[in-house]
Amino acid sequence: MKVRRSDRLIDMTRYLLERPHTLISLTYFARRFDSAKSSISEDLTILKRTFHERGTGILETVPGAAGGARFIPSISKQEAEQFVKQMASSLSEQSRFLPGGYVYMSDLLGRPDILRQVGRIIASEYQDGTVDAVMTVATKGIPIAQSVASYLNVPFVIVRHDSQITEGSTVSVNYVSGSSNRIEKMALSKRSLKPGSKVLVVDDYMKPGGTVRGMQSLVKEFDSTVVGISVFAEGALTGDRVVEGYTSLLTVGTEDEQVNVTAGNYLEKIFTD
Amino acid sequence: MKVRRSDRLIDMTRYLLERPHTLISLTYFARRFDSAKSSISEDLTILKRTFHERGTGILETVPGAAGGARFIPSISKQEAEQFVKQMASSLSEQSRFLPGGYVYMSDLLGRPDILRQVGRIIASEYQDGTVDAVMTVATKGIPIAQSVASYLNVPFVIVRHDSQITEGSTVSVNYVSGSSNRIEKMALSKRSLKPGSKVLVVDDYMKPGGTVRGMQSLVKEFDSTVVGISVFAEGALTGDRVVEGYTSLLTVGTEDEQVNVTAGNYLEKIFTD
Repeated sequence: MKVRRSDRLIDMTRYLLERPHTLISLTYFARRFDSAKSSISEDLTILKRTFHERGTGILETVPGAAGGARFIPSISKQEAEQFVKQMASSLSEQSRFLPGGYVYMSDLLGRPDILRQVGRIIASEYQDGTVDAVMTVATKGIPIAQSVASYLNVPFVIVRHDSQITEGSTVSVNYVSGSSNRIEKMALSKRSLKPGSKVLVVDDYMKPGGTVRGMQSLVKEFDSTVVGISVFAEGALTGDRVVEGYTSLLTVGTEDEQVNVTAGNYLEKIFTD
Repeated sequence: MKVRRSDRLIDMTRYLLERPHTLISLTYFARRFDSAKSSISEDLTILKRTFHERGTGILETVPGAAGGARFIPSISKQEAEQFVKQMASSLSEQSRFLPGGYVYMSDLLGRPDILRQVGRIIASEYQDGTVDAVMTVATKGIPIAQSVASYLNVPFVIVRHDSQITEGSTVSVNYVSGSSNRIEKMALSKRSLKPGSKVLVVDDYMKPGGTVRGMQSLVKEFDSTVVGISVFAEGALTGDRVVEGYTSLLTVGTEDEQVNVTAGNYLEKIFTD
């Protein structure tokens, strides 16, 4: 039975949103809806326009018989600025101050609506499709990695400080934890990352960057390459950072027990022009 | 400027899918699209039909001027069966066997497409809207908790074995780890769960259930109630389980070093009629 245009548009929207960065062929949609390819083509033109106008993202359409459409999540400068501003303001509440100059943020990073935006914002930086896998270290980076991975539609892997029986054989590296200046160990299951992977490293919080540096050396052990480093928040530093070329959504300052969260380098890095 | 029906349908689909279990008012949509409430009402009727026909979920429409629509994710028996079957088959590969009778599943639980379905399936059991928060224990339960929480549109909280400086003050309990029969400790940040919460406990894997039992007592410490327990996989047991009333998607057997994964109790529990 032929499907009406309105029904097709609704189902195509869902279908494409659930499969970012994946080319869905005209042929597939034509069969799914028992409709002519020319009608599907027109549907995609409407979807493309609406996605663009509403800031949902980019619908890339590939012309021709072998063509189709690919949904690329993205975010407008205005929406990104608004989100960063809102996060900075929420995190600047004085009650979030913790001993040692840390800021409590687990409540925000357990909210699906916030994680969705964090994932979407970070994924927007890597919309060229170069990332094969997202890597993070347990525990608090995981929700961010998962959300970013879902917008890039690639798997994510979890590096652990303890080596678990349920991970099988692992590869481990030692690294210098920046905050405590101690030698620590991190491990990743051998079978979790293919050699030659292009890896995006993400974490919730980075101070001097020792943990991220540990992940960089772990990626090398898997004959893979780090193609990006993105953190939700970086701690304001007086000394040197051991990591370069990273992107942060927020900068957390806690001088004199006062919490002061401001925009990180994301906005200026992504929206320069 | 008035928005065309096709554009409205596309944007409403995205908007509703991103906000499960939330009533979006006719008024909101009418303003968003500069359209009459009667037109929006008609749109919702179309959305409801398509969501139903395609198995996307239920669109509850609330009639009247104060009315609107609420998207309730759900899954058909057929789709759930197919997913469980596919998971059982993937996990039954002999190469997944690990010493101690465990099965390697981290690769599957790091794939956004699989996590999306796991979250959707588990959330379908609690579609009556009684859950206020999802709880899990670090590390491997986190992606499942996050996905379930996103379909229920409630926050999730992470219980930890180590007490971290970035969590602020914590409440901890001791529990007997079923597999090792040792006394262990788990802790949850004091400010992460409100008293009186209705909590859904989820985990990736449960054997006798010591960890889940630990979470149950932790929930009590927060003057809250466990309203459900859902695990991705339960280990086949010869002895007794210390937890009752749980739901599992899969049962993992590893007798004589042979991996044998079959359906858990989910399907018969949810689709009895």
